[in-house]
Amino acid sequence: MKVVFIGSGNVATHMALAFKEAGHNLAQVFSRNLNHAQELAARVDAIAVDDIAQLDKLADVYVVSVSDSAISEVVQELNGIGGLILHTSGSTAISVLSGYNKYGVLYPLQTFSKSVNLTFKEVPLFVEAGDEASLILLKSLATGLSDKVYEANSEQRRTLHIGAVFVCNFVNQLYQLGAELLEANQLDFEMLRPLIMETARKVQHECPLRVQTGPAVRNDQVTIDSHMELLKTTPELSSIYQILSNSIKKTHQY
Amino acid sequence: MKVVFIGSGNVATHMALAFKEAGHNLAQVFSRNLNHAQELAARVDAIAVDDIAQLDKLADVYVVSVSDSAISEVVQELNGIGGLILHTSGSTAISVLSGYNKYGVLYPLQTFSKSVNLTFKEVPLFVEAGDEASLILLKSLATGLSDKVYEANSEQRRTLHIGAVFVCNFVNQLYQLGAELLEANQLDFEMLRPLIMETARKVQHECPLRVQTGPAVRNDQVTIDSHMELLKTTPELSSIYQILSNSIKKTHQY
Repeated sequence: MKVVFIGSGNVATHMALAFKEAGHNLAQVFSRNLNHAQELAARVDAIAVDDIAQLDKLADVYVVSVSDSAISEVVQELNGIGGLILHTSGSTAISVLSGYNKYGVLYPLQTFSKSVNLTFKEVPLFVEAGDEASLILLKSLATGLSDKVYEANSEQRRTLHIGAVFVCNFVNQLYQLGAELLEANQLDFEMLRPLIMETARKVQHECPLRVQTGPAVRNDQVTIDSHMELLKTTPELSSIYQILSNSIKKTHQY
Repeated sequence: MKVVFIGSGNVATHMALAFKEAGHNLAQVFSRNLNHAQELAARVDAIAVDDIAQLDKLADVYVVSVSDSAISEVVQELNGIGGLILHTSGSTAISVLSGYNKYGVLYPLQTFSKSVNLTFKEVPLFVEAGDEASLILLKSLATGLSDKVYEANSEQRRTLHIGAVFVCNFVNQLYQLGAELLEANQLDFEMLRPLIMETARKVQHECPLRVQTGPAVRNDQVTIDSHMELLKTTPELSSIYQILSNSIKKTHQY
């Protein structure tokens, strides 16, 4: 199918690569920043455009993959388009597209960085559509991209997105804080990498509740106090240490 | 070498299995709870004891792997022992063992659950010893167990332990909170597993700072507000959302 991408960020990049891989014809990549459009367009053999009036009106699918706050503005400019219009946002309701004839949502529950390759076939995709015909088309598109396609309404998708913020963005920030703590003491973040990998691996077949370890789950106040003492010069780490230790204790009913 | 284990928890279990695997003779496993001692003893062909007076006085190595708060008490009961005495704690200084002749610390920087197997050869081990002869013996022991052996003093080890709490225990708690959030909305934690794995995988060759994604690093206040609105009925999630979003913004200088 002939596909137009609107957006050229991390999500757009990996989605466009997946569409290309699945054999679709990527006609255009639009971005207000022509350099960004060109960068992605070059990777998927598309034409880069930075003027929305230049969009091909005859594509089968338009993938709007821009920041959440820009979606509604971009969508208003897509007049005269007859193809299936999709957005890729977890926290934006499908209703933002309801002015169009055929529309839907294709939300990939994954963390994408332009510079990091991944196996798109394993990315869970959540679909929602404005009508039955669009849903059938969207599902067929999605199953061509990934082995994990689920239906989810806008409310479920927002919950999934918040869940993703906790298990990905906040987790990555804890990695970052761990890295900073080590570096401040002339220790290398490399030393934490096996632990990070194992922590993620453990919950692939277990639930996190059952595999928790460390001072808080043992209610080991001596160690917690010793850590808090060391963190007292860094109020941010100290607050995070306290709130998450309390959360673990609460979960494990101390 | 003839090795005695004091303790039978998660760390003791995986350490004892690693010693066994490396060809050592595990003479005894001590625990105040005989069932626990027997459970581990059976896995490593050792004799289970629950009376510290029954400890074999002639072993080469004694591994004290009990909770941090119990170490100093247990250590006081090891009179008349001539072998190398080790503890395995991140946050306990080596000085707790200084009443003995040969002593050291063998700290594995990993998360261990009895029920979850792992490749011990990849576990970073941090060693510290009371004297040069003990250090040589300890290093030789450690390199038989793992390919990643580092020297670290008690202060560095405590920093590593706090780092581990951030990137492992707190991370696992975020997995748990994500799971609870999904389950409260009839969604399956399974949907988050590929994201969890990818988030850990991404930082194996990159630093976390460079691969952060999500609303906070984009300073996307519309999405953050929409998430906070949904979380307002769960004060704990709401506080964690706020503190970690602010931390991300601070790291990325918004």
